[in-house]
Amino acid sequence: MQNNSASGPLNPSAARPARDVFLREVGLRDGLQIHSTFMPTEQKLAWIRAEAAAGMPEIEVTSYVPARVIPQFADAEAVTVQALGTPGLTVAALVPNLRGAERGIELGVHKLNFVMSVSRTHNLKNVRREREESIADFSRIVERIREQPADRRPIICGGLSTALGCSYEGRISIDDVVRCAVALAEAGANEIVVADTVGYADPTLVRTVFKRVMAEVGSLPVGAHFHDTRGTGLANVAAALDAGVRHFDASLAGIGGCPFAPGATGNIVMDDLCFMLDSMGLRTGVDLEKLLAVRALVREALPDIEMHGALARAGLPTGYVSTREQVAA
Amino acid sequence: MQNNSASGPLNPSAARPARDVFLREVGLRDGLQIHSTFMPTEQKLAWIRAEAAAGMPEIEVTSYVPARVIPQFADAEAVTVQALGTPGLTVAALVPNLRGAERGIELGVHKLNFVMSVSRTHNLKNVRREREESIADFSRIVERIREQPADRRPIICGGLSTALGCSYEGRISIDDVVRCAVALAEAGANEIVVADTVGYADPTLVRTVFKRVMAEVGSLPVGAHFHDTRGTGLANVAAALDAGVRHFDASLAGIGGCPFAPGATGNIVMDDLCFMLDSMGLRTGVDLEKLLAVRALVREALPDIEMHGALARAGLPTGYVSTREQVAA
Repeated sequence: MQNNSASGPLNPSAARPARDVFLREVGLRDGLQIHSTFMPTEQKLAWIRAEAAAGMPEIEVTSYVPARVIPQFADAEAVTVQALGTPGLTVAALVPNLRGAERGIELGVHKLNFVMSVSRTHNLKNVRREREESIADFSRIVERIREQPADRRPIICGGLSTALGCSYEGRISIDDVVRCAVALAEAGANEIVVADTVGYADPTLVRTVFKRVMAEVGSLPVGAHFHDTRGTGLANVAAALDAGVRHFDASLAGIGGCPFAPGATGNIVMDDLCFMLDSMGLRTGVDLEKLLAVRALVREALPDIEMHGALARAGLPTGYVSTREQVAA
Repeated sequence: MQNNSASGPLNPSAARPARDVFLREVGLRDGLQIHSTFMPTEQKLAWIRAEAAAGMPEIEVTSYVPARVIPQFADAEAVTVQALGTPGLTVAALVPNLRGAERGIELGVHKLNFVMSVSRTHNLKNVRREREESIADFSRIVERIREQPADRRPIICGGLSTALGCSYEGRISIDDVVRCAVALAEAGANEIVVADTVGYADPTLVRTVFKRVMAEVGSLPVGAHFHDTRGTGLANVAAALDAGVRHFDASLAGIGGCPFAPGATGNIVMDDLCFMLDSMGLRTGVDLEKLLAVRALVREALPDIEMHGALARAGLPTGYVSTREQVAA
């Protein structure tokens, strides 16, 4: 993400095209983590390289969890190291705890995405910690980062899952979301990401929550991570844009799902998101045709995975001129 | 729709619950018109009655076109007459021309939806008329309605298809949309509906077009008819709500498609739309559980039809309390 005071030589943003909205592909992490078939390392890298070549500025390439917990990420080291060779790409990875963060720092990953749940029940079930303990973990990660020489410090992102609803608790207190966001910001987050992990959000709630969080965390970028579980994903993006959000997570072809709703869709579809933003005159830096072409790579590698996406079925509108081309002209 | 100066005894709105947003089911017309299998009349009526019982205030039940043009509507008379017996339901039907309007008037249908295209090319291909000729047709329909005794006058709605994009022409001039809307309003429309027939719209365009149209047609209700062809349907609803739109078309399970994009989705999914509006605290009068139950009727009647809908796959959020129940409590 931009305007990041912690960015050092690890941040390759200088060479990038102008963007109004900053996208992060999370299909390789959030998408693949619930897919039972291992995607071979070379095919993950082919996906990463092709999507970066299509103009995607940032990709969450893996998660630093033990391979016995999620076998899909057994190749986290190889994926990270080779992804770091991709020109212009910010390579991000999820870290559940200090140990994971240490793996990422050692590998030289550009960005660490720490995630905790705003829902107390979900946090207890997911990482067996009270929320306060998770915030303390986050502080230790920030300390460890600050022990590194300036040119070896990854960007640290504080993610709040279940911030707009929880399968265990239902509605989540907005005060709790703000309290957690402020705690992560004060602990040293370079960015905050607010996530609708189970797809409960609606545009009104999104506007309210993001406005409040953004008002409380000062100049930190606040990103949105929406799932399309109940069809409201892109409507929530539109509402977040209104609130001033300019950083969004999504997954190519909506790869992924929802562990709490078998058969349901997961992350919002990157291809449809890019089309909507581009149609709105917002520069994403992504070439829509090239992005759509990446779907074939994923289909070939994972023949049995469910793929979503309306743009891929319908095609671009007649005479469509992307904002990217308008700017280039 | 409400606040309709032309409404006489044909308008059953007096007995209805309070609503913030007014929905119209169009699956039986826009959805079925491109489906090759004839849906038996009794099953159409079962769908109409079940959805009305779920709280749907208005259903476009058929189209008064010759049966040789669209065999699906060969039972237009029977469907209309029997649908008119449904308590509390506004029965609407599409009319392509004066002859169709005369059939509707004779049957005593509550509302006539006249549709013309803002795209000159699309209008020529679809009804073989210049736009000015279509507006003249509309004026003749209004005259014919006004010849009726006051208690036999249907509401007349002026619909503008391809208003947000056209498969032949691409982008459509907003001035043309406004010009056509004003012409229909001046000719005597009780309502205007602006349609994104091929799913080209984005939230920015929606906000611009609807604000301009609403500013020009005075107090007439302006409804939105969105297709989800490229995934932006509910985002466009959110933008239209911001612009002040309170009338929306949709089809149960997204029944239908797009003749210009085989395999693509058609109308926005009514079930997902109702969920989003309800989540936003807007009263639709629709019971979400009862609405979802109607899907089974349609599935049984048309085993081979493609059905969409994220809510149906994922279910309602944990502890979800609908706005409807909150209001009733």
